[in-house]
Amino acid sequence: MNKIQLQKNWKEKLHEIIYEADTFAGKLFDVALLILILISIVLVMLESVGTIDEKYHDQLYIAEWIVTILFSIEYVLRIISINKPTKYIFSFYGIIDFLSTIPMYLSTFFVGTHTLVAFRALRLLRVFRILKLARYIGESNQLLKALKASRAKVAVFLFFVLILCVILGTIMYLVEGADNGFTSIPRSVYWAIVTLTTVGYGDIAPHTPLGQFIASAIMILGYAIIAIPTGIVTSEITKTGEIHTNTQSCTNCGYEGHKDDAEFCFHCGNKLHT
Amino acid sequence: MNKIQLQKNWKEKLHEIIYEADTFAGKLFDVALLILILISIVLVMLESVGTIDEKYHDQLYIAEWIVTILFSIEYVLRIISINKPTKYIFSFYGIIDFLSTIPMYLSTFFVGTHTLVAFRALRLLRVFRILKLARYIGESNQLLKALKASRAKVAVFLFFVLILCVILGTIMYLVEGADNGFTSIPRSVYWAIVTLTTVGYGDIAPHTPLGQFIASAIMILGYAIIAIPTGIVTSEITKTGEIHTNTQSCTNCGYEGHKDDAEFCFHCGNKLHT
Amino acid sequence: MNKIQLQKNWKEKLHEIIYEADTFAGKLFDVALLILILISIVLVMLESVGTIDEKYHDQLYIAEWIVTILFSIEYVLRIISINKPTKYIFSFYGIIDFLSTIPMYLSTFFVGTHTLVAFRALRLLRVFRILKLARYIGESNQLLKALKASRAKVAVFLFFVLILCVILGTIMYLVEGADNGFTSIPRSVYWAIVTLTTVGYGDIAPHTPLGQFIASAIMILGYAIIAIPTGIVTSEITKTGEIHTNTQSCTNCGYEGHKDDAEFCFHCGNKLHT
Amino acid sequence: MNKIQLQKNWKEKLHEIIYEADTFAGKLFDVALLILILISIVLVMLESVGTIDEKYHDQLYIAEWIVTILFSIEYVLRIISINKPTKYIFSFYGIIDFLSTIPMYLSTFFVGTHTLVAFRALRLLRVFRILKLARYIGESNQLLKALKASRAKVAVFLFFVLILCVILGTIMYLVEGADNGFTSIPRSVYWAIVTLTTVGYGDIAPHTPLGQFIASAIMILGYAIIAIPTGIVTSEITKTGEIHTNTQSCTNCGYEGHKDDAEFCFHCGNKLHT
Repeated sequence: MNKIQLQKNWKEKLHEIIYEADTFAGKLFDVALLILILISIVLVMLESVGTIDEKYHDQLYIAEWIVTILFSIEYVLRIISINKPTKYIFSFYGIIDFLSTIPMYLSTFFVGTHTLVAFRALRLLRVFRILKLARYIGESNQLLKALKASRAKVAVFLFFVLILCVILGTIMYLVEGADNGFTSIPRSVYWAIVTLTTVGYGDIAPHTPLGQFIASAIMILGYAIIAIPTGIVTSEITKTGEIHTNTQSCTNCGYEGHKDDAEFCFHCGNKLHT
Repeated sequence: MNKIQLQKNWKEKLHEIIYEADTFAGKLFDVALLILILISIVLVMLESVGTIDEKYHDQLYIAEWIVTILFSIEYVLRIISINKPTKYIFSFYGIIDFLSTIPMYLSTFFVGTHTLVAFRALRLLRVFRILKLARYIGESNQLLKALKASRAKVAVFLFFVLILCVILGTIMYLVEGADNGFTSIPRSVYWAIVTLTTVGYGDIAPHTPLGQFIASAIMILGYAIIAIPTGIVTSEITKTGEIHTNTQSCTNCGYEGHKDDAEFCFHCGNKLHT
Repeated sequence: MNKIQLQKNWKEKLHEIIYEADTFAGKLFDVALLILILISIVLVMLESVGTIDEKYHDQLYIAEWIVTILFSIEYVLRIISINKPTKYIFSFYGIIDFLSTIPMYLSTFFVGTHTLVAFRALRLLRVFRILKLARYIGESNQLLKALKASRAKVAVFLFFVLILCVILGTIMYLVEGADNGFTSIPRSVYWAIVTLTTVGYGDIAPHTPLGQFIASAIMILGYAIIAIPTGIVTSEITKTGEIHTNTQSCTNCGYEGHKDDAEFCFHCGNKLHT
Repeated sequence: MNKIQLQKNWKEKLHEIIYEADTFAGKLFDVALLILILISIVLVMLESVGTIDEKYHDQLYIAEWIVTILFSIEYVLRIISINKPTKYIFSFYGIIDFLSTIPMYLSTFFVGTHTLVAFRALRLLRVFRILKLARYIGESNQLLKALKASRAKVAVFLFFVLILCVILGTIMYLVEGADNGFTSIPRSVYWAIVTLTTVGYGDIAPHTPLGQFIASAIMILGYAIIAIPTGIVTSEITKTGEIHTNTQSCTNCGYEGHKDDAEFCFHCGNKLHT
């Protein structure tokens, strides 16, 4: 029983280091991981640049294997140190971690799968978890709260914008026609989105006077309706106050967002290690 | 008289299914209609893509006729089930429903009218009526209220922007001239709108130093005045509270926007079927 | 003395019709003038379109002369009916009215001055005076008040943006150089403005990796700082309430913006004709 | 000791003229400096324009030397008149002043360093110090306060946007590939930033239907998330009140931001010369 106790302590310690950021070791681990992720992104980027890949192909290949092995070790440690491994494996970050590690192993068996290493960019999202250790935590949470509150309204708005773009794109398809670059309705809808959002690539542009008149109307419209999501989000941010949470995650169920003075997990009632 | 009573009940039942969304059958009808509209839009889009139309022309043609017939049945049922059919026929949605159904029938008589099927995209607007069954209803209404309140101010603003674009376009026509792409005043006004709204296609761009200087001033101006509609809408959204309405429409006069606990139509006093 | 009295009454009546919009005749005059201005703008626009001018050159020429003569009559009446003609002649609208009328007369003596007719577009600004007769008056005034209040802050902001563009443009000139389209510092500054305001024509675009990196930073920056004027204007609009003024202008000094219940001009103390 | 006293007075007088703007001489110096900086910027700009430099190369060269010598004199005076010269030399403005003066001297020894004169554009930032003499001071301070308060939140937001662009750029690199202009991941990330910030040059644009679909999603997304920084800054500006400070800087420690009625430096307790 003493051995089990010890093992449990060892597992709990590991969990604290890997999943939390309240201890010094935990912070160190997070910062090291962050640096490793950034290095791996830079590697993937450099490899994609033709001229660099030609020169330093072998060095980049070796460096990528080193990163892959380190990621693999981290992945295994994460599975070992949590009470319910499936909780982690099928979580958002768990899937991303898996997808960032597997392509290199696959590339030894199948040609072409190597490119999937690019999915590693998604690991950057982990920065937000790690960011919690910084003073920005309060800020991010407040923002997220305001965004969550305005989610439904912004969704309704974006939905309306999309329908508008379908209708306007269809009209422009009838007005301009295939000769002026509006070769199909989906392409015209793409143009309408490019115009209404004020991106304006210019790869497709109206040529007939009527088309330019309608395009002008769409732009003026886009200029006015951009005010809507801004208004929604602003009123939400003005409303929400700040909330204080810490960086702990439950060793049992993995839930986060516990209050600063929380002693038990608000989801499963497990004791938190403060 | 019993027969009339029965018929009236039958009509009322149909009205409830087609026009309202409070009962299960009503919700089912709305969702089915929504899916059918989406399918019809996808059909129209696919048909407009040259390569797809060549391959699957016959299948798309048959599918479109099926959708048209289903739309026709719905249109007839809507006329039958309402007390005052003209109310529906000449309403906004009634006209759109008619325009979405007729092109296919016309195309059997006149060549070329088939393209008008594209007007079916307007039926997507019905999504907003159907959306009422979702939890977004409160959100949309609040948004609409704020937008209605800021309508006049935004209109004044857009009017000002338009006049500004006419004046700036005219100046640029005099400065740049036909050699640099500003071939006429309407085209220059089109350019001014493209620039002021920060769309910036680049199909027309100033080439003379003076033209580029004026263009820069227009952009800086556009950057500043985009703040105006945003400010207007934001202050309105902050002001308006939430209002709760249900999805009922009066069987007698067709009015909507009844309060949750309304028992009689606020417009004609007819009993509502809650 | 009776004759003078009569003449004075006649002048006052004319002043009321031309300068104010409270009587029926005054409103009629304003609406007629508005339509005439719009016609004259359309004429100038049509004339600038090569294909239309070729076909209908004579008709457009005659129509323009008719408009010019009507404008001339209006200009003379405005001078006659006001107590201090110089007040009108050297006012903002007085100068515009003069500039809109003179080019046609000049074109009979000097070749080429005809193009100056395009300045007539500035007369569109008079719409804002005439608009006062509409229900939008309260709205415009409130907007103007908020804009006036935020003027200084927005000016500081735009000034900062301009300096930023000069600095960023200079850096890009050094980084990209003449070979990549950044042929001179003024042109690079123009590019920086095009980029920072998110217009993005694409006539000049960075080609070197470092240039694209700096450009990305500028865009992200532009994305963030557009929030500043919006924030300024929004907070001002939220603050300001509505003010009610009428459409009278003083027959003596020409001042406007009198309160609804004003009996004397707040500037010169002259009795107002309510 | 009398001589030392006199010298001290002389130094203090000079400090007041150069570093502050409360006396007439101080204002005059600031305005003169502002004009000189503007002239030097115009000189650098003109020189960069090929056609102008060819014609007036000698005149521009002489004018630039005159400006450089005047800047040098100012730089020396600034060092002499302050109590702790290192404070100024290693301050933000001190470094810029040095960098604006040195390139001309270097260009006599090394060929090519002349271009560095362009760094002089950074001196424009001094305008903000000089602007303090204008009535805008209150406005700028309020703005800066609101921006400082929203700094952390906007940073988190921009950080999120950057990560999003890396992920979206990587996806587009996989979807579109090198044949459609997405030659490498960094370039694709550059495209994602151009698109998300609604700049939209159009130098790189998606060609495959799937790429255009993803691009549309990015644009709609960018349209929605631009609301976030606006919301943050607006709520901060609404919160902050106005603060009144004067243009004095302490002769001893160089600190600024003293209240209007301050008699002693809030940092070192030195008597302020009001």
